[in-house]
Amino acid sequence: MKKYQRLAQQIISQIELGVWQPGDKLPSLREQVVSSGMSFMTVGHAYQMLESQGRIVARPQSGYYVAARPTGQQPMPPAQVMRDEAVDINTYIFDVLQASRDPSVVPFASAFPDPRLFPLQQLNRSLANVSKTATAMSVIENLPPGNVDLRHAIARRYAQQGMNISPDEIVITAGALEALNLSLQAVTEPGDWVIVENPCFYGALQALERLKLKALSVATDVHEGIDLNALAQALNDYPVKACWLMTNGQNPLGFTLSADKKAQLVALLTQHNVTLIEDDVYSELYYGREKPLPAKAWDRADMTLHCSSFSKCLVAGFRIGWVAAGKHARRIQQLQLMSTLSTSSPMQLALVDYLATKRYDAHLRRLRRTLAERKQQAWQALLRHMPAEVKIHHSDSGYFLWLELPAPLDAGELSAQALAHHISIAPGKMFSTSDTWTPFFRFNTSWAWGEREEQAVAQLAAIIYGMLTHHNAYLPAP
Amino acid sequence: MKKYQRLAQQIISQIELGVWQPGDKLPSLREQVVSSGMSFMTVGHAYQMLESQGRIVARPQSGYYVAARPTGQQPMPPAQVMRDEAVDINTYIFDVLQASRDPSVVPFASAFPDPRLFPLQQLNRSLANVSKTATAMSVIENLPPGNVDLRHAIARRYAQQGMNISPDEIVITAGALEALNLSLQAVTEPGDWVIVENPCFYGALQALERLKLKALSVATDVHEGIDLNALAQALNDYPVKACWLMTNGQNPLGFTLSADKKAQLVALLTQHNVTLIEDDVYSELYYGREKPLPAKAWDRADMTLHCSSFSKCLVAGFRIGWVAAGKHARRIQQLQLMSTLSTSSPMQLALVDYLATKRYDAHLRRLRRTLAERKQQAWQALLRHMPAEVKIHHSDSGYFLWLELPAPLDAGELSAQALAHHISIAPGKMFSTSDTWTPFFRFNTSWAWGEREEQAVAQLAAIIYGMLTHHNAYLPAP
Repeated sequence: MKKYQRLAQQIISQIELGVWQPGDKLPSLREQVVSSGMSFMTVGHAYQMLESQGRIVARPQSGYYVAARPTGQQPMPPAQVMRDEAVDINTYIFDVLQASRDPSVVPFASAFPDPRLFPLQQLNRSLANVSKTATAMSVIENLPPGNVDLRHAIARRYAQQGMNISPDEIVITAGALEALNLSLQAVTEPGDWVIVENPCFYGALQALERLKLKALSVATDVHEGIDLNALAQALNDYPVKACWLMTNGQNPLGFTLSADKKAQLVALLTQHNVTLIEDDVYSELYYGREKPLPAKAWDRADMTLHCSSFSKCLVAGFRIGWVAAGKHARRIQQLQLMSTLSTSSPMQLALVDYLATKRYDAHLRRLRRTLAERKQQAWQALLRHMPAEVKIHHSDSGYFLWLELPAPLDAGELSAQALAHHISIAPGKMFSTSDTWTPFFRFNTSWAWGEREEQAVAQLAAIIYGMLTHHNAYLPAP
Repeated sequence: MKKYQRLAQQIISQIELGVWQPGDKLPSLREQVVSSGMSFMTVGHAYQMLESQGRIVARPQSGYYVAARPTGQQPMPPAQVMRDEAVDINTYIFDVLQASRDPSVVPFASAFPDPRLFPLQQLNRSLANVSKTATAMSVIENLPPGNVDLRHAIARRYAQQGMNISPDEIVITAGALEALNLSLQAVTEPGDWVIVENPCFYGALQALERLKLKALSVATDVHEGIDLNALAQALNDYPVKACWLMTNGQNPLGFTLSADKKAQLVALLTQHNVTLIEDDVYSELYYGREKPLPAKAWDRADMTLHCSSFSKCLVAGFRIGWVAAGKHARRIQQLQLMSTLSTSSPMQLALVDYLATKRYDAHLRRLRRTLAERKQQAWQALLRHMPAEVKIHHSDSGYFLWLELPAPLDAGELSAQALAHHISIAPGKMFSTSDTWTPFFRFNTSWAWGEREEQAVAQLAAIIYGMLTHHNAYLPAP
């Protein structure tokens, strides 16, 4: 193959790989000469050949552009990316999450609230302010433990609830997820036992798997939360290192532990010298009169790492969370410096700017009201459409409902059928290593209720009716 | 204790913890009533008591403010944060890095180039543009694998070097550090053997420790790079899973592997079916005529995960890097969704905006020229001041020099003494698990050379003279 043919072939490969898309301007002859080290002549030949094949088009006074794709020709599938993956819980969760990104899918599976509920305009204003004030040195000032003003602002919100948390024990992280992962890593070694709820946030199961930890799943009631007797039993029977759980607006169930139960939980864990990793990302989304306290408020022995973020209540895209880590703050910073180094400096500064406007609490009040209204609407719609056999578990915070199909119907099957109709739900098996929750699914109620949502619920109901009929056809008559 | 006394005590604790700083406005009586649930009377009593103790001051028509600290009273040290840490290599690295953040320290230890060399104004303009165009849904569009336009822009830079990398195999990460960590995790299990250079970027050693991997450190020459015979031996003798190394402008030594050596390296690893994790964050900082290729350019078997970032050559604070992960792209995304979820959306959008201005290459040319000039200046200064016994190893890229004290002088001791004079250096033991590099240190040459830098080098030299004298005093006369 001649040099110019090789170059032409290379450009064709790049077009097929998607490096250059139809309509993209290709490097000029001059640029191509510089980057390829080939002669002007060779590059010219290659471009002429591509032009004659209809792969690229020359536009006078402008340059060479990738031609529109010939009808019938499909872009090469990115085969090298997708092969060789065993199907496991992570792949399953990944697929459900990826499907939720498709804008044509009605995202009842989403873990995030409708991003249109966030104060985009004010946040963009803060971003614009940062673009005027950021200096070359801000990057150094915002390294772990993170921006000092942001840590102060967070400490003050704790103080509003009567909690004394020093800014020095707060570490800013890439969302609560990094805070939780670093916390777990700070207090465990591979092979250690860790207690989680059943069902629990799937991120906990994934973190345990990633860090080669052993999970003890403790029975957790839809309304009452974790079974303290079962927890005590587990703490007696196993050398447990940590307990990861959610105390407010638990994901996926939605309950908030009572103050009494939080106190008992902390006492029990302290007695067994077990660290509590408290995932508290939904605490701002309460429906009651006042913000519930985290379990950490009862902790007098510095046994709790309290993790939270702004992602569910203010802005998801900034990826800013934190951990109030007590004596583990230094270790957490070390682990962060080793893995992601730091969160981005402009994002921290933009949050400092936004929080200084004092609009946050007014936003939160509005957000809570809207989420409560939308949850009510979604609930009504589900009641209208769902077969009577479907049980809807309500909860008094956040934007999830927990739905229960009549056994032995499988919410995983419902999920698969629903996706074919461009509707996503989050089936129970995402939240557990056991089969306990196979007939359950989590339903995101944060979306503005319209025709599309109503039809999607009707479609979900139709699929469930179909599953019921199919199932009953194989049952002996009662 | 009465209710109002308890509240007063709590506010005193918060002041001592640093939640409220001298001059800060405290919550108003009304706000305090709402957040504490106490009566107006109780809160009023508490504030009066604090005022009478001189802890807070009332300003008419404005509210209550934290009083200036009484002379002689020190803020309480954050005792709960700093205790209980064994001294190990990570703690050591952490301390050196933390010391470098202090603006009073001359940061010759820094791993980053002088941030004043980055195009702050243009980047801020891009940030301002994003603040006008970001939508509520951008967060979803920028989830892993990351913004599609950014992945295209990166694929095109590969194409400029003649490499065919599909945007579909690129995953955007929180800097190269997350890319490297996720790559290592994707291809190893705890207990596996991994090859690193000796000396190597300390992040590699930390990642291995964090993931419970076993390190094989292969001898690496200051100018020629990794010893391929030693590498072949290691590959024969151990069941190696991965090899993490730097091919261009290696940290800390500065060498760039020759094209031949890169080809041989890839052939050797492919033959043993060992994944190459290529850390290539300095490739834009070459001094030669053209940008060196990564080893991945010779890889025909999809055995290389190529990791890089914008942090060393465009902007450190955004925390945006990537990995060209080939067949591992999906697994990397899964691991990212589990640990940090995603990089921040406005940061990705700001980079897309900046790269679309086509200013990047002009900036890089300017940056390379400045870094080369400054390295030359620093080198001259070192030659002027350092004892003849100190060897300065030059390299043809980047912004590091690698200095060698006469044995048995310990650069760790030099580092400790230098820090007392507010000068930081990066001693050799940060880069190795062995004692090989005890007399060496890395010196960052990216700073504008002025009186402060000149004096710091003179001071460093004076300390070394002192160490030599002290050492020689205990030696038998020759």
